[in-house]
Amino acid sequence: MAAAASLEGITDFPSSMQALIEAGEQGLAAARALVEAAPAQSLATAPKILAPLQRPIRLRDCCLFLEHMEVSAGKIAKAQAKAAGQPEPTPQGPDGTWLNEQFYKQVIYYNADHLHVFGPDDEIHWPVQPGWADYELEWACVVGTSGKDIQQDAARSHIFGFTIFNDWSARDLQFPFMEAKLGPGEAKDFANSFGPCIATLDEFEDPYNLQMTARINGEVWSSGSTGTMHHSWEDALVQFSRGKTLFAGEVIGSGTVLGGCGLELDKALRHGDVVELEIERIGVLRNRVLFSQGA
Amino acid sequence: MAAAASLEGITDFPSSMQALIEAGEQGLAAARALVEAAPAQSLATAPKILAPLQRPIRLRDCCLFLEHMEVSAGKIAKAQAKAAGQPEPTPQGPDGTWLNEQFYKQVIYYNADHLHVFGPDDEIHWPVQPGWADYELEWACVVGTSGKDIQQDAARSHIFGFTIFNDWSARDLQFPFMEAKLGPGEAKDFANSFGPCIATLDEFEDPYNLQMTARINGEVWSSGSTGTMHHSWEDALVQFSRGKTLFAGEVIGSGTVLGGCGLELDKALRHGDVVELEIERIGVLRNRVLFSQGA
Repeated sequence: MAAAASLEGITDFPSSMQALIEAGEQGLAAARALVEAAPAQSLATAPKILAPLQRPIRLRDCCLFLEHMEVSAGKIAKAQAKAAGQPEPTPQGPDGTWLNEQFYKQVIYYNADHLHVFGPDDEIHWPVQPGWADYELEWACVVGTSGKDIQQDAARSHIFGFTIFNDWSARDLQFPFMEAKLGPGEAKDFANSFGPCIATLDEFEDPYNLQMTARINGEVWSSGSTGTMHHSWEDALVQFSRGKTLFAGEVIGSGTVLGGCGLELDKALRHGDVVELEIERIGVLRNRVLFSQGA
Repeated sequence: MAAAASLEGITDFPSSMQALIEAGEQGLAAARALVEAAPAQSLATAPKILAPLQRPIRLRDCCLFLEHMEVSAGKIAKAQAKAAGQPEPTPQGPDGTWLNEQFYKQVIYYNADHLHVFGPDDEIHWPVQPGWADYELEWACVVGTSGKDIQQDAARSHIFGFTIFNDWSARDLQFPFMEAKLGPGEAKDFANSFGPCIATLDEFEDPYNLQMTARINGEVWSSGSTGTMHHSWEDALVQFSRGKTLFAGEVIGSGTVLGGCGLELDKALRHGDVVELEIERIGVLRNRVLFSQGA
């Protein structure tokens, strides 16, 4: 009530995160004024924090980190060969890696599912009885200003901020789907978690030096750094705006940091596991995995 | 003016195609009443017809037709081997085809670009100077009623209608991108055309027996039938709603009919070409291709 009273003077505040992003600098200034005007302890009970963008206008997931891909590609190739009764394959990529050279030449990505989005503390109901349920420790960039043919030295100014991204993955569905070579399909198209907030660009002295951690039931499984990306966010923004518009509010996932998923660790999630992804200066994104179907 | 006067009695009509779809049977009944109330010749000039859904909430493109994929997969494999200086590859799929068995076992798809959508008579500006500009003759299903765990015998009732879909493809970008096996990426993420309308389900006695034609500058390049799909729309709706919600307004592309693109015909589009896709009972979708960058 106190908060409501103190906010009466502020009108026309963007009614959604998408509207706030599109409002640009003016929107952020209004948000800062709103925070300053709000009393420090005005809520009787803790609010439920939703995903910062509950239905982002678009979601891509990229291969910006390549070390994870090098390990995972090898694991998948070996699993596929084993399932097909073929001999163990050998790496065919540059310098004895498992990755095709295209991963190094450009930002490889696929369009992900922007309609099944979850936020902090949401339960993740696996869509089918899982064979191998997995998390992926990623971060995501939220585009701030629309642009076409964005130049490298202007690219950072098109970033609104960063959030934590858990790219839930059904490995048992992924192996057969990826035999078709058209992407992970339904292995990832059922849940994507974001949060706990979008930390705006001004919060970061150096976004490429942030500790990334994944804990399962409190135990550290994954630990890495945003500094190990092969391609930068700026590279992605330049490439994705070449000859066409990249829109404010689009969300771009980094791909998984080295060691940032059970696939690399030969571990699977179990029913009821609590997965916490933490990234310095952004916060902790916590979800519980349930192997029973939700709404 | 006459039209406006005669429509005064109708209020609360859905303000967008998405809202019309979500309004279900009631929305369609209101639309029929509106059409009946409108004078036959009330417009002094022809209106500009836009894409039926200018920003669909989601767009997938599937491999429902497999004959096109069998031919194209072979062509791409040979082109990739040639580019890499490797010997000509041989088909590895079932029955001597080029396709992995997964294409036959389930509906393989990728998420496509729902933000760069064009309609009838729109100019298609190629995003970069093209090496091999191509069209793809497809149709698309628009989901009418949201559903989770849709059953096969109820699937057709979840279809709102069908439209024509041109899945513009930059083959020169596609070959390297697809080496990464995560989908076509930017080779297709710059323009998708739909139109001239969504023909609602009740317009079709048998949607699986429609003639499909592509004409380039008036010359027939492609000719096929919707009856040659390996997987049905019903198969796709069942699979895509398994354990998660498929939403009203989602657009699902069929993939290309056999012979329905220049890749199969060893032909490329040129600057200024007019591409007309025609499907029986839906109409003609016409676009001009320009190799200069648009807005």
